[in-house]
Amino acid sequence: MQAQAGEPEIARVCEKIEKLGFRAHVMPGAQRTAIGITGNPGPVDPAEFEDLPGVAEAIRVSKPYKLVSREVKPDDTVVRVGGVPVGARELVLIAGPCSVESREQILATARAVKAAGAQLLRGGAYKPRTSPYAFQGLAEEGLRLLADAREETGLGVVTEAIDVETFDLVEQYADCVQIGARNMQNFSLLRRAGRARLPVLLKRGMSSTLEEFLMAAEYILSEGNYQVILCERGVRTFADHTRNTLDLSVVPAVQRLSHLPIIVDPSHGTGKRDKVLPMARAAVAVGAAGLMVEVHPSPDHALSDGFQSLYPEQFVELAQECRAIAGLLAARSAHHAPVGR
Amino acid sequence: MQAQAGEPEIARVCEKIEKLGFRAHVMPGAQRTAIGITGNPGPVDPAEFEDLPGVAEAIRVSKPYKLVSREVKPDDTVVRVGGVPVGARELVLIAGPCSVESREQILATARAVKAAGAQLLRGGAYKPRTSPYAFQGLAEEGLRLLADAREETGLGVVTEAIDVETFDLVEQYADCVQIGARNMQNFSLLRRAGRARLPVLLKRGMSSTLEEFLMAAEYILSEGNYQVILCERGVRTFADHTRNTLDLSVVPAVQRLSHLPIIVDPSHGTGKRDKVLPMARAAVAVGAAGLMVEVHPSPDHALSDGFQSLYPEQFVELAQECRAIAGLLAARSAHHAPVGR
Amino acid sequence: MQAQAGEPEIARVCEKIEKLGFRAHVMPGAQRTAIGITGNPGPVDPAEFEDLPGVAEAIRVSKPYKLVSREVKPDDTVVRVGGVPVGARELVLIAGPCSVESREQILATARAVKAAGAQLLRGGAYKPRTSPYAFQGLAEEGLRLLADAREETGLGVVTEAIDVETFDLVEQYADCVQIGARNMQNFSLLRRAGRARLPVLLKRGMSSTLEEFLMAAEYILSEGNYQVILCERGVRTFADHTRNTLDLSVVPAVQRLSHLPIIVDPSHGTGKRDKVLPMARAAVAVGAAGLMVEVHPSPDHALSDGFQSLYPEQFVELAQECRAIAGLLAARSAHHAPVGR
Amino acid sequence: MQAQAGEPEIARVCEKIEKLGFRAHVMPGAQRTAIGITGNPGPVDPAEFEDLPGVAEAIRVSKPYKLVSREVKPDDTVVRVGGVPVGARELVLIAGPCSVESREQILATARAVKAAGAQLLRGGAYKPRTSPYAFQGLAEEGLRLLADAREETGLGVVTEAIDVETFDLVEQYADCVQIGARNMQNFSLLRRAGRARLPVLLKRGMSSTLEEFLMAAEYILSEGNYQVILCERGVRTFADHTRNTLDLSVVPAVQRLSHLPIIVDPSHGTGKRDKVLPMARAAVAVGAAGLMVEVHPSPDHALSDGFQSLYPEQFVELAQECRAIAGLLAARSAHHAPVGR
Repeated sequence: MQAQAGEPEIARVCEKIEKLGFRAHVMPGAQRTAIGITGNPGPVDPAEFEDLPGVAEAIRVSKPYKLVSREVKPDDTVVRVGGVPVGARELVLIAGPCSVESREQILATARAVKAAGAQLLRGGAYKPRTSPYAFQGLAEEGLRLLADAREETGLGVVTEAIDVETFDLVEQYADCVQIGARNMQNFSLLRRAGRARLPVLLKRGMSSTLEEFLMAAEYILSEGNYQVILCERGVRTFADHTRNTLDLSVVPAVQRLSHLPIIVDPSHGTGKRDKVLPMARAAVAVGAAGLMVEVHPSPDHALSDGFQSLYPEQFVELAQECRAIAGLLAARSAHHAPVGR
Repeated sequence: MQAQAGEPEIARVCEKIEKLGFRAHVMPGAQRTAIGITGNPGPVDPAEFEDLPGVAEAIRVSKPYKLVSREVKPDDTVVRVGGVPVGARELVLIAGPCSVESREQILATARAVKAAGAQLLRGGAYKPRTSPYAFQGLAEEGLRLLADAREETGLGVVTEAIDVETFDLVEQYADCVQIGARNMQNFSLLRRAGRARLPVLLKRGMSSTLEEFLMAAEYILSEGNYQVILCERGVRTFADHTRNTLDLSVVPAVQRLSHLPIIVDPSHGTGKRDKVLPMARAAVAVGAAGLMVEVHPSPDHALSDGFQSLYPEQFVELAQECRAIAGLLAARSAHHAPVGR
Repeated sequence: MQAQAGEPEIARVCEKIEKLGFRAHVMPGAQRTAIGITGNPGPVDPAEFEDLPGVAEAIRVSKPYKLVSREVKPDDTVVRVGGVPVGARELVLIAGPCSVESREQILATARAVKAAGAQLLRGGAYKPRTSPYAFQGLAEEGLRLLADAREETGLGVVTEAIDVETFDLVEQYADCVQIGARNMQNFSLLRRAGRARLPVLLKRGMSSTLEEFLMAAEYILSEGNYQVILCERGVRTFADHTRNTLDLSVVPAVQRLSHLPIIVDPSHGTGKRDKVLPMARAAVAVGAAGLMVEVHPSPDHALSDGFQSLYPEQFVELAQECRAIAGLLAARSAHHAPVGR
Repeated sequence: MQAQAGEPEIARVCEKIEKLGFRAHVMPGAQRTAIGITGNPGPVDPAEFEDLPGVAEAIRVSKPYKLVSREVKPDDTVVRVGGVPVGARELVLIAGPCSVESREQILATARAVKAAGAQLLRGGAYKPRTSPYAFQGLAEEGLRLLADAREETGLGVVTEAIDVETFDLVEQYADCVQIGARNMQNFSLLRRAGRARLPVLLKRGMSSTLEEFLMAAEYILSEGNYQVILCERGVRTFADHTRNTLDLSVVPAVQRLSHLPIIVDPSHGTGKRDKVLPMARAAVAVGAAGLMVEVHPSPDHALSDGFQSLYPEQFVELAQECRAIAGLLAARSAHHAPVGR
């Protein structure tokens, strides 16, 4: 739509789309509002729309993903999580333990990461574990503790939903619902996330191509939820010096093809505490909109992922170094073309 | 348990296990019955059981997977699908289209593969598709058509369940429920499969290690369903001459570590029609208990996976060559030690 | 060239090619002789040749590899190593220790594998080792011992050349020069192999695509040596139950694109003794022209690769099972179309 | 050795080592001189050395690589290339075309990258090409042109040697000899590089583990050349949005295990021009000692790798952004512990 197009013009385009039997997807941007069409069995004639008032242009999307594509919406999408804009100027730090283990643990962590400058709190209440005999999370009790931590610290909560059954509960407590790497192609769960009233953080699967990653996001958008944050967390390779190989090149690749923001998880992406800080710096330098980092008040006693969790003081250092790099890039891009394209 | 142990001895061991607050898993084998224990927070003293009548030995399992391990059950497990034993002497051929598309298509395929010697029919009613806009299967209508094909041909039906929501329906129509590669670590779905009254065919994930594969099966067994067939279907690598790289070495590796039967899917494992026959032969030669093969009466018009589906006459050739190799190996192993260990 | 074309017609075509400033490559086949052209800066007009006597057709090769392509030479190439045809009807077994260690060791192995039915002897005199401090082979002394073993047993010798400096020496003693996986893109060594008077066995690199593999062979053929045997020996993946992942699907893929014979090395391809036999069977079943297998009279005392070397009695079993499968496939293909295309 | 140990104490230790029949490797560091021992068939008794004057401690190296290990030499090694210290405070930029193509091309590039702040010039005179029919480099003529460019601009020259045959020639003209990824396990070439009087830049192989990478460097050091720079240039994975997957986590992993400096090549590491700048920033942020970047005055007309070469003005931007990040990290580490460990 044209920049000056208002509600009535937008409504009229949607009406026309629905009259044709298709579905209209209204995605407002900083400059202009984009309206995507799905449900069309074949190509739609652009001429049908180009004469409507307020329409700037009608574009046929060339990619298999439609609504996530920059073709349909050239402006960056900014996703708001508990009031924090993800994908805007400021670097977003999401930090917390792998699993919520106790009130003391989650509150101590929340206070520490808040003090260090994190804007959002992570922590798993439902844990997808390789072994059926491993700690599976505190479930609703964990969600309640996260909500308490939010209450005390003001940090918005990002936590994982692992199935459709418990999604309602997660939605009730969280500010952003995470879909984990193992569920990136759990299409029923993606569809449910697409009907959620909360933003979704979608992690890249362990052996997912870029196209599959964007198609997974497309499942969510196609159901009407356009608030999706993508997250790189490492892929499987032969390399054995880290648990996964963090593929930072996917950040500019996503930014070129999609309007959705992308962040990086250097904790799962390396699986080793001493690699988290340098890879976090690299993730910011490559242009990621934020970081998701595991922090634990006492990593050696963590019930899961202790070996990759930072001590709180290490997170302080990480936050300082990463904000410094982000600041430097933002200052440069204020003068120049956008960073990271 | 000792070979001659009967119901009462088995019951008494189970009673003892449950009295300790643990769960007992009774898995009968050709020679002896094995009883697994789960739910124990730490090691259980073998001496607690070794004096009970009928107990041959109490073994502490050294692997992270317990019930799927050969340590707990040295005998091969034979899984019965609609009367067909999988993991016994005879090679099992499971064949059919990627998706059920119409009554004519599924009946024509069922007749053709039956005539060629297949014992079981495959066909998807719920399809996990990379794109939300691709054909997603006929759902319950597809299940009904599969049941009709069974009625006409007598072939047992293997079909995929993609979520907990539709699992009941699949269970109602199928003889064996498939869990696809993308869902290998969908732990809620695995748990549901563990409570099913039907055998489960579990496909290896695209970047799954052997241990993760066995742990996924452990999820199913830990819920009380011991009728699990494993299936290799190719993994992701840099190689680009096939869609996936079929890792046949996982067959003897599974056979060494687990009592569960393993079969191979050369259709997804290669993604190219002209590679299916040679890789099917190789899969039988390596010692697989069966094959799962895509066959379509008219591959060029298939709604999914047409390029990797065999023409019915190609499946005839495959069945003949594979049965000949299987026969040769069976004849040899009749004289010698078991093949493939 | 036409089947009935003789020396004079072939000579005349070559003369014409050379007059144009290009290089002619004469490759005789079972039915017809193919003549490849290299050195042409751009396309050559087929009409220039089609009127010459004895020319059947002039084909423009569409692939980046020219001389290795089936387009240029539709007939299978049969490579003769010490009198043994590789790529013909009979399965070729190349067996022996990883490294030549002593006279006793190589003679004992040669006798054992000969008795079991191997036609060729393998054994390294120059070893490419990951560590500069590991045993690097007996060098010329090792070559001499191989020659002695040939003298006693009549087995042709396949041994590796690791650099241009020692290539002359290897050529002096061997019947076939191996280029190892680590040297698959050592282009100077490939060029030297292309000027050798002996056949070359070229192993696929650890992360080589099919196209790179064929291009490496093209380096050898482009220098005038058309006697090249390809060998799959496993690629690098995330899978950790074997040392490498043996990619058997490359066998039919090579057979489709190239006239060169391809064999399989299940020893390096798995890195585990108990996987060698089943994967050897699979390699034969997929259509490989031969196998290269590590056998050691006392694997536990081997100076290299002991854990993947077979005991002599295991090789007897391997030879029997593999010849049985090869015989079965040959019998079938006597009636039908060629196997493995 | 102790910090205050001088020539005579060092000489005496070396004498002792050689008297035992071993080889002594003297590696001076910023603080202390380390002396490595190779050639010992088994463990050496530390007590043999600890009493000698000037010896601080005698350490048994626990890794398979000895001389490259931080255990043997805790101080960072700084390698001097044509007067430029690599591995010291300042970020080193090595830039230039993939191949030297002509006098105009190499001079124009050298001037441009010098003006933008590069300290060293790259450019290939001998090119390892996948196809025998592709442009193979200008050979000695290319080396001469590089020397001319050095003469005019003062930039030291880094260029590749692809075989032992032409190594002398490269050594004659270059300031640093590159060993390419395909030759990382060309052990004869590594040995030759170990006898070179010039520093060596060793690129990681396409599917090399960290241990194999360090072992390849060990080959060079074991021959007496301790001036080795390591270079990450991407590894092979299933991901298809870049040509290789740049594994930046190997930078802190190398820094932890070895004293050798490590740089990053984002050009080969991504294979796409628009990914080079963001990945270059990331490489600096992760802690790399330098960057190796392809720049061409007219990428669209390059004879090789044009699609990944930067336009000169893009390199100006890269140099500015990367120096800014490096400056920021250096300022921080002036106050704190070393960056990137």
